[in-house]
Amino acid sequence: MADSPPTRAAQPHVVIVGGGFGGLYAARALRRAAVRVTLVDRRNHHLFQPLLYQVASAVLDPSDIAFPIRAAFRRQRNVHVVLDEARRVDLERGVLQLRADEIPYDFLILATGASASYFGHDEWSPYAPALKTIEDALEIRRRVLLAFEAAEHDPDGAAAWLTFVVVGGGPTGVEMAGAFLEIARNSLAHDFRNIDPRLARVLLIEAGDRVLGTYPEELSDKARAQLERLGVDVRTSTMVTEIDDAGVMAGDERIEARTVLWTAGVKASALGKSLGAPLDRAGRVEVREDLTIPGHDNVFVVGDLAAAHTGPEARPVPGVAPAAIQGGRHAARCIRRRLAGQGNVAFRYRDKGSLATIGRAAGVADFGRLRVSGFVAWVLWLTVHIFFLIGFRNRLFVLLSWAWSYFTFQRGARLITGVDKDLLPPT
Amino acid sequence: MADSPPTRAAQPHVVIVGGGFGGLYAARALRRAAVRVTLVDRRNHHLFQPLLYQVASAVLDPSDIAFPIRAAFRRQRNVHVVLDEARRVDLERGVLQLRADEIPYDFLILATGASASYFGHDEWSPYAPALKTIEDALEIRRRVLLAFEAAEHDPDGAAAWLTFVVVGGGPTGVEMAGAFLEIARNSLAHDFRNIDPRLARVLLIEAGDRVLGTYPEELSDKARAQLERLGVDVRTSTMVTEIDDAGVMAGDERIEARTVLWTAGVKASALGKSLGAPLDRAGRVEVREDLTIPGHDNVFVVGDLAAAHTGPEARPVPGVAPAAIQGGRHAARCIRRRLAGQGNVAFRYRDKGSLATIGRAAGVADFGRLRVSGFVAWVLWLTVHIFFLIGFRNRLFVLLSWAWSYFTFQRGARLITGVDKDLLPPT
Repeated sequence: MADSPPTRAAQPHVVIVGGGFGGLYAARALRRAAVRVTLVDRRNHHLFQPLLYQVASAVLDPSDIAFPIRAAFRRQRNVHVVLDEARRVDLERGVLQLRADEIPYDFLILATGASASYFGHDEWSPYAPALKTIEDALEIRRRVLLAFEAAEHDPDGAAAWLTFVVVGGGPTGVEMAGAFLEIARNSLAHDFRNIDPRLARVLLIEAGDRVLGTYPEELSDKARAQLERLGVDVRTSTMVTEIDDAGVMAGDERIEARTVLWTAGVKASALGKSLGAPLDRAGRVEVREDLTIPGHDNVFVVGDLAAAHTGPEARPVPGVAPAAIQGGRHAARCIRRRLAGQGNVAFRYRDKGSLATIGRAAGVADFGRLRVSGFVAWVLWLTVHIFFLIGFRNRLFVLLSWAWSYFTFQRGARLITGVDKDLLPPT
Repeated sequence: MADSPPTRAAQPHVVIVGGGFGGLYAARALRRAAVRVTLVDRRNHHLFQPLLYQVASAVLDPSDIAFPIRAAFRRQRNVHVVLDEARRVDLERGVLQLRADEIPYDFLILATGASASYFGHDEWSPYAPALKTIEDALEIRRRVLLAFEAAEHDPDGAAAWLTFVVVGGGPTGVEMAGAFLEIARNSLAHDFRNIDPRLARVLLIEAGDRVLGTYPEELSDKARAQLERLGVDVRTSTMVTEIDDAGVMAGDERIEARTVLWTAGVKASALGKSLGAPLDRAGRVEVREDLTIPGHDNVFVVGDLAAAHTGPEARPVPGVAPAAIQGGRHAARCIRRRLAGQGNVAFRYRDKGSLATIGRAAGVADFGRLRVSGFVAWVLWLTVHIFFLIGFRNRLFVLLSWAWSYFTFQRGARLITGVDKDLLPPT
């Protein structure tokens, strides 16, 4: 990196890896600090993951929920954005290794997040894509829309094409299952001549004994009831033991389904391994209470890459966007304290509550003492998500897309795109 | 096709191939006719090609300019949409062959358009992509945005990364050249730290002696002047004789450029060959004055696939959207006449004028007696394009995107997306 030699620069160098919630908010929180910041990401955009399922379900466009990282820091002149892939941290020498360069750091914040985990069954991934990137979302959109085309093309084999299985009953799974059903019931209802899309089945399969397992039980029950009222076939305490190109084994039952979505598990980014610190089963870095790693009080790990604990009871910090934001800000705060000659402080996670939406005008919300469901939860969900979107244009366009979809029952991004061979139903 | 056996159905069967302007308007013009219509396309969406360059230049999203063909005919119950690829026309038996099925027709309308032609140099296509599909546009967007990232990554080699060559001075070439320059000058101006994007060069290379060769000479001159005022290096009467991964040979000069766009030529869709009718040099079907082929007055060819002539002077019909719309409507009108016991009539192309936009708030327009340039032409261009977009949502979102880009100088779709290995600058 010709532009940031530590010898020339007087200010301490903070290197942040990852432009998700953790990294983005860490860099922002350093805007008035006397530091040089280098933010490394392998994508040119910050992605608002909580709305990614709406790209997969053809409501939003990719650029509605993504924002160029460079543009986010246009006016914050102490931030230097580097589009590159971080390969390894060399703690001895205090450098971050990229593909071909390396960057020396005084402080390091790792926020590279997590990707899908198939729990040792990576061979399932071609049949059951996960939802982590824009490309994943467009692939799922393609599969869902093409499934209806395939059913129209071959009405005799329609049943398996009109069966959609979502594996995993967390917020993404719940939201996707609701969205699949509404595509079939509303958006496509009158568009076909040989099949009736309204006959589509959606199954939500969860290994645990309830959906939204991290929410209060009362809200899990309400979410399940709302899903079932929509028409989703919810199967809890059911393990998926096999996935192939024609269906899944769920418990003892074989379900013929051509479209399967995987939302059941995540594993932390591989970058954490190079720290040499202990990792938990999901590959997350076991951080200390100040979010640093043992022996290196200038190396912070935040967001989904960290196995953090909070409070006197050392409760685990959940892998959600607000935790990543708070973690990023905490790391920035510690760095500012260090510059002022003070020490790191312990991270305290403030649980702002949990939200999930379940199809049209329904949802559940948990704000500790306040628990709501149905329409009120849905409106809260809309408001919070608009608020945390980066960029005025994104907020405006997402709001308008939602309004349009709500009133017309249509979806504005119903495109089958991709590589040529995948655009047509099988013959 | 289980659903459309001619023995069961009493009404004549009109098969339309292609959901572009020609096919879409033909099907619409048959909405009150006592016919069954089958519309075959290999994509699930109608694409508004005249605005595709705005997807390539990160202003619009793909779904802003595309509309699901099924949704367009939701309420027109005599239209059956089939997502499939037409392989061959069997005139003897009166059937259209798809990948695995075949469809018998009473009337056939072919409107499969054209793709890029490299004039025998297909080996140039990886280095100089053309702009015909949504995937093409996203690929060009990726290359343009990544070029600036590569320059930032390697400031010493920046010159070739910051040189953009557009081959072909037709409307798409002129519009793209203006857009490239504005990305560099406005949208990205302050986003980099190692390079100044405003130093980017854009060259427009045209083999003929003027840009917009099909427009009146006066407007070609004005377009050239507007391009040069923007800062585009316009080279007319210049042949491109070589394109590789590092640049182009333009006349006698080697230009080092990492990003090249091809807008120089088109060839008609291969489906025309199976008709056995004479083809012109670009592979277009030489149709009779009623747009049918010799010996088959029930087989129409419209839009860019047809080499049609109009009027007493038999002037060639240009390959533009209004000509395709008029051709599609003409074919539908002939079919309605035939059902009423009358014969086909000759196609008369009504030239509604030509428009091109040149960057921000500039353009040229030719409406026969009325020729305007600059801001007025630009406003006309905006109005006409909004009017011909399919769907209220598309119109609203395109208008808002334009307004936002106009006032902020930003581009709302600045995403580098695609396959993993192509997302990072070379090391």
